[in-house]
Amino acid sequence: MLLKRTLLLGTTLAVLSSGIALADMKPEDAIKTRQAGYMFMGWNMAKIKAMAVDNSEDFDTKKMQAAANAIAAIANSGMGALYMPGTEKDIGNVKTRAKAEIFTDKEGVKEVAVKFIQAANEMQKVAQGDDVFAIADQFKKLGSSCKACHDKYRKE
Amino acid sequence: MLLKRTLLLGTTLAVLSSGIALADMKPEDAIKTRQAGYMFMGWNMAKIKAMAVDNSEDFDTKKMQAAANAIAAIANSGMGALYMPGTEKDIGNVKTRAKAEIFTDKEGVKEVAVKFIQAANEMQKVAQGDDVFAIADQFKKLGSSCKACHDKYRKE
Repeated sequence: MLLKRTLLLGTTLAVLSSGIALADMKPEDAIKTRQAGYMFMGWNMAKIKAMAVDNSEDFDTKKMQAAANAIAAIANSGMGALYMPGTEKDIGNVKTRAKAEIFTDKEGVKEVAVKFIQAANEMQKVAQGDDVFAIADQFKKLGSSCKACHDKYRKE
Repeated sequence: MLLKRTLLLGTTLAVLSSGIALADMKPEDAIKTRQAGYMFMGWNMAKIKAMAVDNSEDFDTKKMQAAANAIAAIANSGMGALYMPGTEKDIGNVKTRAKAEIFTDKEGVKEVAVKFIQAANEMQKVAQGDDVFAIADQFKKLGSSCKACHDKYRKE
């Protein structure tokens, strides 16, 4: 209990002071990790699309839920921390398509990020059922929330 | 309802016949996607370690849960499908460290995969509480389940 209190106090102090320190991560690894997150979400988006929109794969409830869970969990994992200083431009072979604005337009980024996370959470919820039309509909909304960020903050 | 039944029937038939077709994915993309999944889990493992083992970051319940959720959701996302034919060796610039055995030793792979998924699910469960010792303990078990696969099926 004492430890817990100390930990809680520590957290409070950290929030009050300079925020929680990032793990000791190199900028190039932060770029690669955020790209990994998007890529893995993309794979799971493709699975949902194949099962609920294109019908190119048979509908499988467990697979659908697992795909939506992966997207929601990644969306909620605090990827904003991966846009740390030093990750604004290419580092050697590690290329980034992030526009400068994503590092400066705090309000605009927050807006697209919140909408994306809400859409991913709703996708996870809808995927618990087997209403393929609702799933397809939410898939499109989620896709639009991805695109809103790409259009504004990602280079071609 | 009719549609649902048709879908369920379709699923049953697919399972009875040749299994569910993989999305139209190039082998190099399958390699990159599985590596993306491992990398993203690695980032989240590092967060848990920093908060619960090294104490280099302050303990944050929400961050801890989000990290464990991401690992569990990725672990449960059916990554086995990404070890599709054609992904046994490097493709151009896309390198893989997967040993040949991971494509042939079905029983052995199943064993490490099941243990890993169980450990990831338990990590997610333990992370719902704030018992930092239990979290640290489960983190080590989860890490061992990662290592068991690396030792057996990953090249140095």
